[in-house]
Amino acid sequence: MSLTQVSNVKMFDGKQQQFTHQSSSTNCVMQFAIYLPPEANETNKVPVLYWLSGLTCTDENFVQKAGAQRIAAELGMAIVCPDTSPRGENVANDAGYDLGQGAGFYVNSTQAPWADHYQMYDYVVSELPDLIEANFPVSNQRAISGHSMGGHGALTIALRNTSRYSSVSAFSPIVNPIDCPWGQKALTAYLGENVETWREYDACELIKQSSPQLPMLIEQGLTDNFLAGQLKPENLIAQAKAANYPITINQHNGYDHSYFFIASFIEEHIRFHAKHFS
Amino acid sequence: MSLTQVSNVKMFDGKQQQFTHQSSSTNCVMQFAIYLPPEANETNKVPVLYWLSGLTCTDENFVQKAGAQRIAAELGMAIVCPDTSPRGENVANDAGYDLGQGAGFYVNSTQAPWADHYQMYDYVVSELPDLIEANFPVSNQRAISGHSMGGHGALTIALRNTSRYSSVSAFSPIVNPIDCPWGQKALTAYLGENVETWREYDACELIKQSSPQLPMLIEQGLTDNFLAGQLKPENLIAQAKAANYPITINQHNGYDHSYFFIASFIEEHIRFHAKHFS
Repeated sequence: MSLTQVSNVKMFDGKQQQFTHQSSSTNCVMQFAIYLPPEANETNKVPVLYWLSGLTCTDENFVQKAGAQRIAAELGMAIVCPDTSPRGENVANDAGYDLGQGAGFYVNSTQAPWADHYQMYDYVVSELPDLIEANFPVSNQRAISGHSMGGHGALTIALRNTSRYSSVSAFSPIVNPIDCPWGQKALTAYLGENVETWREYDACELIKQSSPQLPMLIEQGLTDNFLAGQLKPENLIAQAKAANYPITINQHNGYDHSYFFIASFIEEHIRFHAKHFS
Repeated sequence: MSLTQVSNVKMFDGKQQQFTHQSSSTNCVMQFAIYLPPEANETNKVPVLYWLSGLTCTDENFVQKAGAQRIAAELGMAIVCPDTSPRGENVANDAGYDLGQGAGFYVNSTQAPWADHYQMYDYVVSELPDLIEANFPVSNQRAISGHSMGGHGALTIALRNTSRYSSVSAFSPIVNPIDCPWGQKALTAYLGENVETWREYDACELIKQSSPQLPMLIEQGLTDNFLAGQLKPENLIAQAKAANYPITINQHNGYDHSYFFIASFIEEHIRFHAKHFS
């Protein structure tokens, strides 16, 4: 697999870079961003935090707005940000912002016209880490986090792949897509009408039986416009309690769904993941 | 003068807000952003850092990308970001990115068709601080900083108004607009052909006789694409030396002209300004 460098900028004494590559999972060209801290080199491989962004985002939003590189540089951690879907003229799309390009929901689609390219679960779980670990001075220690749709991606991917990650976190995640309009629309399109097939992409379902229990940290603003209609953190709190799965959910008065919220609390999440790398 | 609130988001326990107002200087509606740290209130008025952005920017770039609010919250400082020019259908414009809307150069224009609205010097020096100090819980302690064209704005405004600011800083500033293509194009348009009228908007000229000498800090990346052709920090170093004006210019290998560079070093600038507030 060959990588094409799109950008390379110095930041906090490390490197903020973007690359494209032909993806075997999504059958199209994918772009990702990587931050390499100053201490990363072939004799000092660093762990990697994977960040999954939300609806309408690309690999750039977190890189430009969250302010995470400062702490990653201090702690010696790489951060990899994939795109939120396959893209391109030949990739199926939808007029809505919440389906199609920019809205892959981190699932493997089984339905036409989506299945040809919308295999974001495999891309994030396997192909991208393989690529990163073969081409950059990083170890195979991984953590995963994300925002909104990407919080859903991080939680579901971690709960299904507990041996691949040492910790998981999320900001404002969609925790129960089976039970919210965003999730119902996307999962119907990508997976079909049979709700049984949706369960493997729903954190509230997966937390019932995930083992071992990974350290999990969730941040939620209480002035988030999507809180009651789409996010429903109380559903995850209830399922975690029933399953005796210890999770930390910090709920914050006055904060909304934006990157200003993420920027305000990203430092705690970076430090949380660093603490759980061995 | 009445303010219309455009946005209000919680960030680092403070408020990141945007407002519009009818400007008497620029004779059009202007938008600005303000960050108010958590400790700001009517009985605890905080000092203000004014940030002037560069070509093509609005009031939003610094707010979204620099990561300054974290440190402003810690130190108890407001940050005000004006737009980079007058705007609107009735405001003169140019097809280039380096003249007209988004490129006001922080001067008072004397030439048609610009003079009707392009009075950014008066707006930034007088009207905007008056508005801020009348409407927000801030003191009349001020510092000023900026990037590229905004670094030019910060340096020239501070050098001409030493009693209004306690310190000045800049990232990648245009220090000698008389002697670079960006400056020559803009100053010819806004001020006319007589170079004598340009001198009051040129930091290399103003530093020769500015008094008292304000604390001045400049950050410059050495992989900046505009370094040799437009920015020419060596010109300011030479004039400052000739004038016995002590300035600190930190030049950094590998850094470019982008907000990734600003984000990497903004903390030092915020702390520098905080130290010089009485």
